[in-house]
Parts: sequence; structure tokens; C-alpha cells
Amino acid sequence: MTVRLDDLPLRDDLRGRKPYGAPQAPLPVALNVNENTHPVPEEVADDILDAIALALREVNRYPDREFTGLREAFAGYLGHGLTRDQIWAANGSNEVLQHILQAFAGPGRTAFGFSPTYSMYPLLTRGTGAEWREGEREADFSVSAVSAAEQVGEARPDVVFLCSPNNPTGTPMTLDVIEAVYDATDGIVIVDEAYHEFAPHDVPSALTLLPGRERLVVSRTMSKAFAFAGARVGYLAADPAFIDALRLVRLPYHLSALTQAAATAALGHADTMLAMVDDIVVQRDRISATLEALGYEPYESWSNFVLFGGVDEPARVWERLYERGVLIRDIGIPHHLRVSAGTEEETTAFLDALASIDSAS
Amino acid sequence: MTVRLDDLPLRDDLRGRKPYGAPQAPLPVALNVNENTHPVPEEVADDILDAIALALREVNRYPDREFTGLREAFAGYLGHGLTRDQIWAANGSNEVLQHILQAFAGPGRTAFGFSPTYSMYPLLTRGTGAEWREGEREADFSVSAVSAAEQVGEARPDVVFLCSPNNPTGTPMTLDVIEAVYDATDGIVIVDEAYHEFAPHDVPSALTLLPGRERLVVSRTMSKAFAFAGARVGYLAADPAFIDALRLVRLPYHLSALTQAAATAALGHADTMLAMVDDIVVQRDRISATLEALGYEPYESWSNFVLFGGVDEPARVWERLYERGVLIRDIGIPHHLRVSAGTEEETTAFLDALASIDSAS
Repeated sequence: MTVRLDDLPLRDDLRGRKPYGAPQAPLPVALNVNENTHPVPEEVADDILDAIALALREVNRYPDREFTGLREAFAGYLGHGLTRDQIWAANGSNEVLQHILQAFAGPGRTAFGFSPTYSMYPLLTRGTGAEWREGEREADFSVSAVSAAEQVGEARPDVVFLCSPNNPTGTPMTLDVIEAVYDATDGIVIVDEAYHEFAPHDVPSALTLLPGRERLVVSRTMSKAFAFAGARVGYLAADPAFIDALRLVRLPYHLSALTQAAATAALGHADTMLAMVDDIVVQRDRISATLEALGYEPYESWSNFVLFGGVDEPARVWERLYERGVLIRDIGIPHHLRVSAGTEEETTAFLDALASIDSAS
Repeated sequence: MTVRLDDLPLRDDLRGRKPYGAPQAPLPVALNVNENTHPVPEEVADDILDAIALALREVNRYPDREFTGLREAFAGYLGHGLTRDQIWAANGSNEVLQHILQAFAGPGRTAFGFSPTYSMYPLLTRGTGAEWREGEREADFSVSAVSAAEQVGEARPDVVFLCSPNNPTGTPMTLDVIEAVYDATDGIVIVDEAYHEFAPHDVPSALTLLPGRERLVVSRTMSKAFAFAGARVGYLAADPAFIDALRLVRLPYHLSALTQAAATAALGHADTMLAMVDDIVVQRDRISATLEALGYEPYESWSNFVLFGGVDEPARVWERLYERGVLIRDIGIPHHLRVSAGTEEETTAFLDALASIDSAS
């Protein structure tokens, strides 16, 4: 007799839910989940492996619960005069965001974001028992400082998510929006800079706004710029008191000794990794230009992916690309699709495949 | 102007709380947190490193969200006819337990355990917004089937924790207690077998009770028997429908590719690791016998540690041991202390230090 999920005393609010899941399909050209498609260079991988070998000698012991060395490495990488007391990290930026929500949202509280935005925000919010509220963007997915502040002032959320640049649209966000939202709320303001390294070099980070703003937090990830999605390392910078709040909710020893060693070693090669980022930006801009030439409507992107409109039948185009060995993402916005910038070869494969569908339709 | 934690819009229920923390002190003989003090043998570490090197080649990609290979390896290790559909894993058994509580406890629900027991149960329970209820043990920290069933029947919790053997007391739990508790509740029954490998070889695991009991779950960890505390790998076995429930609450890609590779490789050396367990059991029994000879009152232990009573001033003894370079644990039970079984040398160092205090007092 087979037991079904509904036979178990599951929480009522989880009944009927489906697990999160971008499809994981083994296609030759996978440009669907905004990974950095460049493998970690061999000299960097060798250094990481040496660090892990060292950590393995003491893996029978619990790891440094305060991941002191790693926090120092993040402070050094981020600059802006930050010190390790202002740094936090966890197993992917999802867990970093979960820690913030556990401390400042949770049952009886609300979190807010401008839709469409990163699909995990509402899931993480509800996962901690808080309520999710949605704000609106303009037709081009931007949001002005005036509108953002007005919407946040009305919604009075406990936590605001500002995805900068925004996922899944790639939309830039300027610092005046962040400042306006911060002033419009007494709650926590999270600026999610997961893709910041792909923005133009002269664009200032929200890190510049941290001094004097103890409710502001800037989150980042090593998944994208550092090609480290498989290692699961997200981090953030905020006031030292904010970091203390996260210590109250994190599971003890949440970051393994292997993760700490791998991430610290990778951060030592920031220059090499950021050079790869520049290559990806070139491919992203090539995608935008070619999409436009093909008659699609790409949006301005400061990330490693491009959202484009003007797709009559997204499901059909997605399927034709799939048949040609190219995996991109249908994110559920009508007449739109999203593609990650890959290596030069992968990008060419995508653009050629798309062009062949276009002419065939 | 320094910002304090109280200046931030922290959740009310977290105000005044202190973060969890066993002291991490760099002492020569650390027998305080029930680690396996034996380093992973070199040939095992080499294999793990090879597996990680392979995983690093694709670390730019998200890991297998379903950690299929690792679940298969756990099923193989546990035996009892288990298949990978019945296995779950996460970053330490704390996260495994958190997943269970998120799915089956949370706001408006309750979890229950027989006190004193693993100190993380109430913290994890409250962390998901559920209420913690405490049951009682006998003076020797055992609990009978009749009493356990009666207490659970009265408390009507949504989740019951049975720590078998119990931490921090080492107390054995027999299967009749688990069966009685299961029959006395409609809720989830977690048997935490973190230390099961240290029990006598002929003691059956609660895994034998799984068939036909879809609300029963048996959790384990690699931290102890596999000397893998630094790698953060906990796991469990349950009905496939139960596993589906956990998929609803876990963060996507919660287990890194490095963790998956390391754990899978280590499981391939189960025989080597379990031989180390036998050495530790010898030291544990030596600790018990010597403590008794010294006039202390050690409790029967099926784990890798010994709780002992008859300590007039635990804080003083703890401090004298500390001064002699030996770190053990004052777990807050009056007139008791707890010590982990170490290598033969570490165990000797502890016993000699304790004997010298004894004669000096």
C-alpha cells in the first residue's frame, strides 16, 4: 500500500504546494539558470583543492562557527572600508536571505518586493511564516524613486527586497531608489546585488550607502561572478549589530569547513574571476544586439542574462530551442523569454538556433 | 555612534536571546562536543579529495538538487532494504531536523521531547515558530514504554523527538519505547540515531521499524561515526511520501556539489570508519570504568561520550581540567559533567588530569 503526501500530518499551508524547481536537463547548451558557464580556471581550482586538502585534515572537528577567515576575505573583496564584523555568509544567498527573514520577518510580519522579481523572495518569505506583498513596476520593469517610496510607504512592510539589477528582468536600479525606499520605511531594506559584478564598472554599489543606515543590507553571491553555483556561497554586508541578529537564527556550524576553505581560496583569485565576468558581459551585449536585429525586444540588462519580449509563442520557441540542444528559461511573463549569456561558443549556438527558428516560423 | 541589536526591528520573540554556542577553545585535548577525535585516515582523505577535484570541474553549475548519488550511497550504507527514495540529507542533522519541523511543526504546532535531551531540539522548534513541550525521564535518565506513551498521549504533540541513544546522557533507548510512542500519537516520530554506531553491535536500529510506519523517521549524522563534523552532513530515512514533504521546505540546491562529492566518497570507506568507532567504544568503556574507580557515577552510555554524576563542584572540576589543557562539557545538570571519548592518548590525558584533581581536592 503506497502512502501519499496527503496521508501525512503535513502543515495545512503546505498542502497542494509543488517544490521549487527549474528543470535540470542535461543539454549541451544550458543557458537557463543564469549560471556562469565558464568553468573555474585550472590554477584557481588547484588552489581551492589545496585549501580543501588542508581542511580535510581536521574535518573530524566542527568548523569555525564564526567563519572568521572567510568573513575577512569577503571584507577584503568588497572593499568600501568594510571589516569582517560587517560580513555574514551562508549556503547560497537563499540561506542568507532566509536568515534575514527569520530574524526580521516571520509569523505576523510582511515582506515586500516589486514584481516581477526573484521568484524565491515570496517562497522564502512564506517559508518563515511571513506574508508576501507585491509592488508594481513600470512597463519596462523599472521603478522610480518616487513610486518605490510611495508603494513601500503604503505597504508598511517589515522587510523590503530590492533586486539590483533585477532578476528575471536584468533591470538596472539606481541608488536614489534605494535611498528613497530606506527613508520611506522603518523596516529592513535588502539590496540583492547577486548580479552586481555584471553592471557597468562605474556603477556604484549599494555598499556605498551602508554608513549610517543600520537597517540596510547588501547581499551578494559567489554563484555568478565567481562561477561557484555548485559550492553554495552567498554573503552580505551590513551593520555589525545586524550581523549579531543573524547569529540568533543561524544553525550552529552552518558553513562547512570545506565550504569555508573553498570560498576563501577562490576569493584570492578575484582578479582572474572578474576578467571572466568581462567576457560574459561582451556576450550579453552581443545577445541583446542580435535579438534586436532578429526583431525581438531585449530589455536593458546589467546582469549576465537578457530578458526579451516580442515572442509570439514562448512555449513553442522554447521547445524548438530545446530540440536544438539549447536550454533557456520561460519565466512565465507572456511573450517573453530569458537567456543567460554563455561562453562565446554557447552564445553563438543559442543565437544561431534562434535565428533558424525565426526564419522557419 | 554605535548601533545596538535592540535598535534594529528584530522580532520580539528573539529580543534578549543569546546565540547557541559551545565554547570553541584551542585546547590540546578537546573532549567537549562529542566529536570523533580521530582524523579521517589518509587513504580515505585522498579518495575524498579526488572526488572533490572532479566536482570542482563543474562547480560553476548548480549542484544536483536531488543529490541522487549521495542518497543512493546512504541507502547502501544503511541497508535494511532501503532505497534512495527513502533518503534525505542536509547540511548537518540540525538542518535535517529543521526541514522536518518546517514541514510538520511551525506556527500553531508543538514538538515534544524527554528532558534532558539534545539542546538543539527546543531551539530548532522555536526557530520554526512552533512550541516546545518537555516530558520527563526517570532519575537514571531512562524512559519506559508505558511512561513515554502516556506522556506523549497527554501532550498530543505534532512532532516527537526520541534521541536514541540520548544526548547528553548517553542513555540507551529500546525499540519498544519507539513503538509505544508511535502508537500513542498521530504526529511525526523522529528517532535521532546520531550516535547509533556506538551502540552494541547487536542492538537493532529503529530503521527496522520503518515498514508500515509512514510517520516514523530515523535521522543520522556523519559527524560522529564518520568523523565528518566539519563537512556538515546529516541524513534520514523515512517513507518516500515523507521525503516529498521535505522537498516542499528545503532551499533549492541546499547541498553543495562539494558536500555531495565528499560525503559519497567517505561512505565508500564505511568499513574503515566503523573500525575507528570500535576503538572509540573501547575508550568510552575505559572512561566509565575509571570514573567509577575514582568514585564518580558514570551512566550507561551507547554513545561516544560519558555523562557522570557525583561531581561536588562541576564548575571547579571543569576549570581545573581546563588549566591542564583538557576541555570537557558542563551541560548544566547539577553535580554532573560530560566527556567525549577521544583517542587512547587523549583519554589517558583526561583520566590522568581528573585523577590529579581528585587527589588534590
